[in-house]
Order: sequence, then C-alpha cells, then structure tokens
Amino acid sequence: MSDKDTNTNMGRRRFLTAAGIAGAGAATGLIGAAKAQNAPDPLITNVQDWSRSLGDGVQASPYGKPSKFEKHVVRRDVEWLTVSRESSVNFTPIHELDGIITPSGVAFERHHGGVAEIDPAKYRLMINGLVDKPLVFTLEDLKRFHGRTNRAYFLECAANSGMEWKGAQLNGCQFTHGMIHNVWYTGIPLKLLLDEAGVKTNGKWVMPEGADSSGMTRSIPLDKAMKDCLVVWGMNGEALRPEQGYPVRLVVPGWEGNMWVKWLRRLEVGDQPWHHREETSKYTDLLADGRSRRFTWIMDAKSIVTNPSPQMPLKMKGRNVLSGMAWSGRGSIKRVDVTLDGGRNWVSARLDGPVMPYSMARFYLDFEWDGREMLIQSRAMDDTGYVQPTKDELRKVRGLNSIYHNNGIQTWLVRANGETENVEIS
Amino acid sequence: MSDKDTNTNMGRRRFLTAAGIAGAGAATGLIGAAKAQNAPDPLITNVQDWSRSLGDGVQASPYGKPSKFEKHVVRRDVEWLTVSRESSVNFTPIHELDGIITPSGVAFERHHGGVAEIDPAKYRLMINGLVDKPLVFTLEDLKRFHGRTNRAYFLECAANSGMEWKGAQLNGCQFTHGMIHNVWYTGIPLKLLLDEAGVKTNGKWVMPEGADSSGMTRSIPLDKAMKDCLVVWGMNGEALRPEQGYPVRLVVPGWEGNMWVKWLRRLEVGDQPWHHREETSKYTDLLADGRSRRFTWIMDAKSIVTNPSPQMPLKMKGRNVLSGMAWSGRGSIKRVDVTLDGGRNWVSARLDGPVMPYSMARFYLDFEWDGREMLIQSRAMDDTGYVQPTKDELRKVRGLNSIYHNNGIQTWLVRANGETENVEIS
Repeated sequence: MSDKDTNTNMGRRRFLTAAGIAGAGAATGLIGAAKAQNAPDPLITNVQDWSRSLGDGVQASPYGKPSKFEKHVVRRDVEWLTVSRESSVNFTPIHELDGIITPSGVAFERHHGGVAEIDPAKYRLMINGLVDKPLVFTLEDLKRFHGRTNRAYFLECAANSGMEWKGAQLNGCQFTHGMIHNVWYTGIPLKLLLDEAGVKTNGKWVMPEGADSSGMTRSIPLDKAMKDCLVVWGMNGEALRPEQGYPVRLVVPGWEGNMWVKWLRRLEVGDQPWHHREETSKYTDLLADGRSRRFTWIMDAKSIVTNPSPQMPLKMKGRNVLSGMAWSGRGSIKRVDVTLDGGRNWVSARLDGPVMPYSMARFYLDFEWDGREMLIQSRAMDDTGYVQPTKDELRKVRGLNSIYHNNGIQTWLVRANGETENVEIS
Repeated sequence: MSDKDTNTNMGRRRFLTAAGIAGAGAATGLIGAAKAQNAPDPLITNVQDWSRSLGDGVQASPYGKPSKFEKHVVRRDVEWLTVSRESSVNFTPIHELDGIITPSGVAFERHHGGVAEIDPAKYRLMINGLVDKPLVFTLEDLKRFHGRTNRAYFLECAANSGMEWKGAQLNGCQFTHGMIHNVWYTGIPLKLLLDEAGVKTNGKWVMPEGADSSGMTRSIPLDKAMKDCLVVWGMNGEALRPEQGYPVRLVVPGWEGNMWVKWLRRLEVGDQPWHHREETSKYTDLLADGRSRRFTWIMDAKSIVTNPSPQMPLKMKGRNVLSGMAWSGRGSIKRVDVTLDGGRNWVSARLDGPVMPYSMARFYLDFEWDGREMLIQSRAMDDTGYVQPTKDELRKVRGLNSIYHNNGIQTWLVRANGETENVEIS
C-alpha cells in the first residue's frame, strides 16, 4: 500500500520535523491564526445584517433546537448495514462533538424491535424469581426511592468497529466508532431494589427484560448487579429519550450496550444464566477454531482520534488541534498516547475534563502541521494497566470470524491536501 | 399569615415526628413503594400494546426529541414580565430536571435584541484597544487555537429571584429561580487570546461586545479575564445553541450572566471601565439611601429545593425524596442544609455527583412524610465559608429597591394534601 510505503520511506528525524509536534513552549507559527491589522476584513469592520435588526425573541422555541447551520450534525445510518429499520443501528456524529458528554439528540440508536412508546402512567417494573418478596414498581415509586444518584457512563455497542475486523472499510469515525455515547444518568442503584425484594441465597443471576416487541433479555451475574448497575429514568438532566428506553432503562457500567436493557419491565433473579438468543447466537465471538467466546461482557480500553478524521479533514497548515476520546470498561482512562507517524514516535495527549470510571475521556494534542502526510493513531491505557492493542494483535488471538469487541488501534492517513482516510498499516 | 401560625404553633418534638426525616438506617415504611404479589397489576401481568408491535425504527429522528409524554418540560415565560419578546426572558424548568447539567433545549433565554442569526463562515472576533497587535479570528482560527478546554459552569441572571425582593410572588421555582443553567462549555481560555494580542502595560479592563442588535457591552477587570474566562463555541458537547450566542460566547465563571456576552464579536482592552448602559442604569442595585451598588459581579451562594415545589407537589405519604440544587460564584458548594419545619431543625443534605467550582451541585434528602404540613427551606454554604442569607437579612442591608442579586433562602409550604406554595416566614 502506498500509504505504508510513504511512511516507511521517511526517516525518524525527517518525520518529526514534518509532523512538528508542538512542545510545551508557546507556538510561534501563526499561519491563519489572525489577519494583520493593516488588511481590514469587511466582515468585522462593516456592520453585519445580524447587528442591524432584531432577531427572534424568547420562546421562539420553548424546547430549543440547534442552529440551522448545524443541520449536518445528526445521527446517520449505513444503508447496507440496515436490514430493517426496526432492528438496526445508527451512529453518533462523534467527529462533530467535543468534551465528554454526548448530546441526547445525537446519541446513537440500536433497536431490536423498534422504539416502544410507553405511557409513563402505565409503566410498571416487576422484580420476581428467587426473591423473598416479588415487587411491582410504578415510575413514581422509583422516583421516590431513597438513594438516587447521578453518574456519567459510556455505553458502547459490542459491535462498534465490528466492520474493521476485515480491514479498513468505513470512511469516517462516525461509522467506525460511532456506536457509543456518554451521558449522565439519574436513577437508583439496582442493589437497593434487589435488597428490597430480598434475593434468596441461591439467587446468582439477574435477567433484565425489555418491554419492547423484541423482549430483549440478557443474563447478568448478581455480583455485577449488586456492584454498580443502575435503574435509571433520567439522561443528561431530563427524562430518558424514547429511543434510549423511556421511561426506564438498565445501566451496566463498562459492559456491552446490549445488556443495558431499554424499556425495562422486569428483573428476574435466577440461579444460573438463561442463555437467551442475544447471548448465544448473537453477542458471542466465533473463534478461528470453531469455538465461541462466552460472556464477553466487558468493553476493553479503546480510543479514537475524531479530529482529524475522514469526515473532518485538516483545513490548513500551521497551528492545529488533534482531538479524540478514550474509554475503558475496566475503570478509568489513565493515559492516551498519539502518534502522527504511524507508530514510530508516540507522545502523551492531554486529558481534559473530568476523567471518571466507565466514562469517556477527552484528549487533545496541540500540534503544527507543515502539510506532509501523516499516519495518525491513538492508544489508550486504563488504570488497570491494560493497553489498547493493534488490530493485528487482536486478529492473532481472535481470528477473523468476529463481529464484536474490536478495540484495535485505528489509523487515519492524512494526505498533503488535508483529506483523511481510513487505512491499515502493519 | 396562617402558614406562619401553623408553624409557630407546632412544638419542636411534634414537628420532628411529623416530618420524620429518615435516619441512616433502611426505611421501613413502604407505603406506595410496591404492590403486594397477591394483588396482580394487569399493567404488568398482561402484555401491553407496546410489546405487541414494532415501534419506530432507527433514524425516525436523525436529531432526536424528548418523548411526547414530556411536552410539559419546556422553557416558560411570565406574561407580565415580558414587555417585548426581543428584550425579554424565559425560565428553565428546574423542577423537572435532575443531576447537575441543564439540557440545552430548556436552558433559559435572556435577550436584549433578539437572537442574532450568524453564519459561522462569516463570523469574526476582533481583539483591539490597548494591545500590541490587534487580531481578527475566524471561527476556524479559534478551533485551531492551542489550549482548548471543557468546563461545567452555572450561568445565573443577576435578576434571578428578583421578584422575591418584595415578597413571595411567583408560584413555582421555574419562575422564582429558573434564570439559571449549568452546562459544559468547550472553548479556549481568554488569557491565551489576550496573550497572543499582547496586552499593553496600561491595559486593565476588557470590554466584550456582542454582535446582536443590542450591541451588548460590559466592563470586565483584566484580572478576571486572565484568571478563568473562556471564549467558547461548544455547549453540552455540540455547537452553542443560537439563543446562547452561536457561534461564540464569553464565559465568566461565577459572575452575573449579563457579562457572558453572546454572539461575541469584539474584545477591547482599555485602561478603565466603560460604564456602559448595562452596568449603570441596569445591573446595579439602588439602595435605600439612594446610592447604588457598583460592580456587583459575583453571584453569591444560593440554593433552591426543586422537589417538592409549587409545580411539583408531593403526591403520596411515606417514602419521598427532596431534591434541589446549589451554586456559588465564589467557588464550590461545601454543604447544603435543609429544614422541613421552617428553620427549627436543620439536617445536611446529601450532595450527589461531581461538585465543581462555579458549577451547580445537586442535593437530596431522603425522608418519610406522614402528611402533615411542612415549611421547607435549603441553605447553601460554599468553600469560602459564606452562608446563604435569609431574605430579611438581605433586605436589612440592601433595602427594597433592588432587582438583582437576591440569593435569599426560599420557603415552600407543603400542605396536608401535598400542594406546595411559595410563602415567606420571618
């Protein structure tokens, strides 16, 4: 591949100059950073239309919307991945977002039977099975429960980056890494509900069941259910969105998104896993030797550079900011390293904003670009010491039959004209 | 006032029983918490309509909206406060929200000339005045600037709770305390822009100017500008909303909202304050002796119980959760105390979620209600030791001519039927 050759041919010293990672000192190259005072820009020296007339008043939108200039910032699907709209997926526009919180309006969707439309007044949640006292809760009962809490957690679909198992396929991080969101949840620890029902001594597993037409069910070990799962009704400060399980969903921090059952109607306690469809024929990885991995719940540490990326090319030489996000289902992100030369040289990116367990972390690398080609990668490390692997390292262990749990390092080729492309190097 | 009499007539012991604040132990009263297993609820035992048929598929809304059952959760205005829509205000529905982040769709609006509709491609920001090198930035220039950061800050209008100076007037915390929001911002420290322009030795003040038709201008001391002000384009992960200053606004942590100039077009450095309209005839407090307070920028520590509140009455005896929020323009919230008996007994509420400087804090008090009347108040304390005053304490110092900076303790009367009312006790 010519991209690889380009990289191979460049010596270390030469590429360092090319990439020109800015040190701790102040940047001196100001290309494009400001116009000189003796070349007046009519857009600032002249009074613009928007300064001449009254704009919309308050309450133009009692529930506000983004600017009309931001219409491109939306969830998108991929036609050939969409068999039926009711059992399908779309993708968060992560290349257009910043910080650590995903706006609810663009948080990706994954449904197995469409969006259940549940009247909150008729909502009920049952706890049954191996409990001393089966219980039924209304939504009001949940909201009056003692012990309410707010937490920010990432939710990643196990199939995120799944198309990358077979090589670079989708040209944009929205499509390669967009089955993820990171939002604030409001709800109560599942442990408190289970304690109220009283789990019997032989109760070892919990099965959440969705009220949607797919009747989504998964098996969750009691230890995890008691440790940090939440039953939530709030998301980013307001009610859960319909497509995220309104009025109530399960939150399973750090574990694959499919287990975070939406439109939650029932929690059954049992003495063994149920081995339902979504944890056998689906959401398991077929290995090269014909066996399958069982119960691969944890989403391992992963990161992605969102800027630049194929949908977000570099626009100008000189001063630039590389940005991305990292997360780990085992805890907190400890460090993210970035390379601009395909792995020859790595530098630690700057983590910005709160770094919280099972929550997305934002990273930046300030750099100067002289216009030469770059091969950009990021590599996350979490606080257990786990380091994000390369795709080839994953393939060696897992073969090529997998769909799920691809947390391999992603490579973007930035061409001299700034265009950016999904490539693989090895 | 009869509310006051009711309170006065109740002995301390009697009221403690009435309010029944739950201790650290598990709650035992389960009124309404769960239905017994031998009284099956058809809403859980019968299959509901939403489980029988496919719902909306993905991409029904590329940019999603709240559930149709949440239509009441919107910004609202007060007709008699609204002279013209273009120079007016509406209120965040804080009684319907939880956690610490305000969803962008319901973050309150305050405009002085309507919402400027600015094409981001034509956006320019100028820095001029007492600087070595006047500069003009495009939006892209700002986004490529080194040192980008993400912070959550509250923005409170100086006039929030202004109607309460003259006594309990508006029946709902949305209207008494809803001129506030708390969102994540993405942008760059103002200091970095000023450093690039080079502030001259005699530069001591900065004047931000808005590109809207009101041409909003304020005077900000250079110390504050260099300390922690931000020039931001992002809000809760996406672009600023139009009504919040799209594409760029100023962030002035802890200081009154009017200074956070929206649609920011210019930053002028000067050697003295400008004494423009919005810092003289407006946004100053007329005292009883005819003098005015000058430069009252900081928003002092304040808190409000959002549940229960007039728009959010108590629905049921037994287990209940009191919730509210607190903030301080001097730093971080250290403690929030709550009384259920009009100030006789206070208990510290539980702070939940990250408590960050100049950001809203969420507090909860888990309690059991036996149906007797309550007089609920909350009192915030910040990490400087400042304690939120009573309204009467404020009036003693400030008189009755003020509109701005009312951070007095709010009282809600909860009647035996759960209805809740804005009252004052002294």
